[in-house]
Amino acid sequence: MRAVDLIQRKRDGGALSPEEIGFFVSGYVRGDIPDYQAAALAMAVFFRGMEPAETSALTESMMRSGEVLDLSELPGPRADKHSTGGVGDKTSLVVGPLAAVCGVYVPMISGRGLGHTGGTLDKLESIPGFRVRLGPSEFRSTLARCGLSFIGQTPEIAPADRRLYALRDVTATVESPPLIAASIMSKKMAEGIDALILDVKCGDGAFLRSREEARALAETMIGIGRSMGCRVGALLTGMDQPLGRSVGNALEVAECVETLKGRGPKDLESLSLELAARMVQLAESAPIEGARARVRQALGSGAALAKLREVIGLQGGEPGVCDDPGLLPRARSTEVIRSPRDGRVVRLSARAIGHAAMVLGAGRDTADGSIDPGVGVVFHKKVGDPVAVNEPVATVHVGSRARLDAAMAELRGAIEVGPQAPEPSPLVLEVLT
Amino acid sequence: MRAVDLIQRKRDGGALSPEEIGFFVSGYVRGDIPDYQAAALAMAVFFRGMEPAETSALTESMMRSGEVLDLSELPGPRADKHSTGGVGDKTSLVVGPLAAVCGVYVPMISGRGLGHTGGTLDKLESIPGFRVRLGPSEFRSTLARCGLSFIGQTPEIAPADRRLYALRDVTATVESPPLIAASIMSKKMAEGIDALILDVKCGDGAFLRSREEARALAETMIGIGRSMGCRVGALLTGMDQPLGRSVGNALEVAECVETLKGRGPKDLESLSLELAARMVQLAESAPIEGARARVRQALGSGAALAKLREVIGLQGGEPGVCDDPGLLPRARSTEVIRSPRDGRVVRLSARAIGHAAMVLGAGRDTADGSIDPGVGVVFHKKVGDPVAVNEPVATVHVGSRARLDAAMAELRGAIEVGPQAPEPSPLVLEVLT
Repeated sequence: MRAVDLIQRKRDGGALSPEEIGFFVSGYVRGDIPDYQAAALAMAVFFRGMEPAETSALTESMMRSGEVLDLSELPGPRADKHSTGGVGDKTSLVVGPLAAVCGVYVPMISGRGLGHTGGTLDKLESIPGFRVRLGPSEFRSTLARCGLSFIGQTPEIAPADRRLYALRDVTATVESPPLIAASIMSKKMAEGIDALILDVKCGDGAFLRSREEARALAETMIGIGRSMGCRVGALLTGMDQPLGRSVGNALEVAECVETLKGRGPKDLESLSLELAARMVQLAESAPIEGARARVRQALGSGAALAKLREVIGLQGGEPGVCDDPGLLPRARSTEVIRSPRDGRVVRLSARAIGHAAMVLGAGRDTADGSIDPGVGVVFHKKVGDPVAVNEPVATVHVGSRARLDAAMAELRGAIEVGPQAPEPSPLVLEVLT
Repeated sequence: MRAVDLIQRKRDGGALSPEEIGFFVSGYVRGDIPDYQAAALAMAVFFRGMEPAETSALTESMMRSGEVLDLSELPGPRADKHSTGGVGDKTSLVVGPLAAVCGVYVPMISGRGLGHTGGTLDKLESIPGFRVRLGPSEFRSTLARCGLSFIGQTPEIAPADRRLYALRDVTATVESPPLIAASIMSKKMAEGIDALILDVKCGDGAFLRSREEARALAETMIGIGRSMGCRVGALLTGMDQPLGRSVGNALEVAECVETLKGRGPKDLESLSLELAARMVQLAESAPIEGARARVRQALGSGAALAKLREVIGLQGGEPGVCDDPGLLPRARSTEVIRSPRDGRVVRLSARAIGHAAMVLGAGRDTADGSIDPGVGVVFHKKVGDPVAVNEPVATVHVGSRARLDAAMAELRGAIEVGPQAPEPSPLVLEVLT
């Protein structure tokens, strides 16, 4: 078997067998197959795509390039949630506790923010003391004790994906649905989970703009999961305006706490409840209505907030942030953005807002950039809300003044107030199971 | 400027500016741009193609990565011929002397055979003593003295092409018309020539099977040459059966000598005359009829044979091969292939014949393989010729017996005798100027 022949077959629109894909991935990880052949194959895949069986084989090969967790010692089903990323997308901190309260074990391995989208790890690290780098035994004991643990990617999990992703990043081969699907699923399937709910976002602030693309990606990932014996479902959700009211790490943690107290923004609350219910449904193969009732109960009873407090404490964080948001880092100053006219909020462009938040310091534009946990934006109005001239639409939480002007200009351009609100569209566009 | 952005633009169907292409090529040669980014760009070009201006810029950047000959001290026009390669394609040894006799200086930089096609350097090296590696000053003095010199690629000429070609070879990105055109033309344009005639072959034994592909490649190369101030023309020629009667290095040299004596196969003679006439026409911007008369005169007078004898002597070879073909290396033994029936030769599949010759040892399947100069095949019949049962169709010149059976089986399959000959098709299919 020669790598060049496999590249050529894919280039010419053919399919590769599981053995051929395994040969390529393991050869690449060992260093027998060089980066340039992997880059050529990735570009050929970009143009030719992959059949479902190929994508599954790629996922499995990448997963098997590293450690695959065996959590079978836990006395309940294991499940996780994965979001393809958005602006103000903070559901992990709500969904994880909700599902854990319902008896699902949630080994949540998350990422950092890049570009205009945020990352769960950055949000968690805004909690004073919180450690996302747990060793394997601490991760397992946290999970066993409270049913939930949040950690970052470890070098042991799917090293082929890490190497391939770094290569794709510099060879313009990131935006390939089968490669995206295999990258996500190779890491998730290595978590040793029985079930996975996907939140596949589409719209202005998502990396996939169209619903069709989002649906295709969701279907690919569902197919991969099933072929590997995992129950996978997906929600297609809109990402045209930020989710919830806050964008920025500590601001989002505070909003999650409010949501777990029943006082959060309705869109964040309802999406978190639905994701958690789908997780319970899939994990237990249970009816959705019962699952919804249980997660609502977990929220209303305060049990989920207690669960968040517990996991924060177990991972070295300050549990007091669940009672006093003043314990979270705060930006040096604030600026208010006011409405230029009477009317209704027509548009809050998620992508531009996410980018402005990054410029403020809430995110990073390169993987090794640093962030400022306190900065961000809080919206007092969402799309469709009535607003009077000079009424505050958003409060910008500012650290360094240096980047303020650029961020403010971008935010002003992202906010549109007009005479008529657009037709409201549901947040959950489709459910794929 | 970032390499990844250029890859992405090409991937998405955009065009790159000459500055961007220059940045990429010079960065690649310097080692600032790694192989994996070049591989990704090459694959994107495979799928998206290049506009004429991009292909010209790529050619120029690759040419400028190394030495560009300045032959302006020569007191006449400089021109060359390039063939895209075929089986039994030996015109260089006839065309070079013909054009040189007509006053054109021919700095012919040739390649070696690979796969089923032969290479001029291998043919020349079958002449005892002939040296294709001349230093720059010996090359220039040979050219100045006799108007003709044959050498191989030097490390100084278009190093970007050499590096990129080696990369394309292992990343399945060879078969891209703009990359093929730029690769050929970057080396030819570095020869410091005023004119170039291309012999673009199509058919079973050519790397391009269809006439449309051959025409497109020819047009691309003509456009590149013109944009760089070189007069370029092209003949599209058929390559369904071998050119001439012999395939194999020493056998082909002997056939060239016979052709320069006016006793060669008609197809080889007429194509060589036409290529030489077109070279003279382009080099001198002269009318084609006059050029044809002059090259016919060069052949008929024996001046071209004398020119071949002269250049062989100047490059260390045995000039006596022009008088006694017995001085050329000869295979150990011969086998005759006879017609299985009465009829006409319907097919002599060039590709299979070229491959069989390679198996016999006349060619190499990897770039570092060695060859046996004496082996090959001589055809006594060509397509359309009548043949009787048991009459010899070909004589196989054999070195090692080890490979004989495989080669004979392939040759027998390549030869078809049937009741009716196909419609004869002209060797020169189109002239592009």
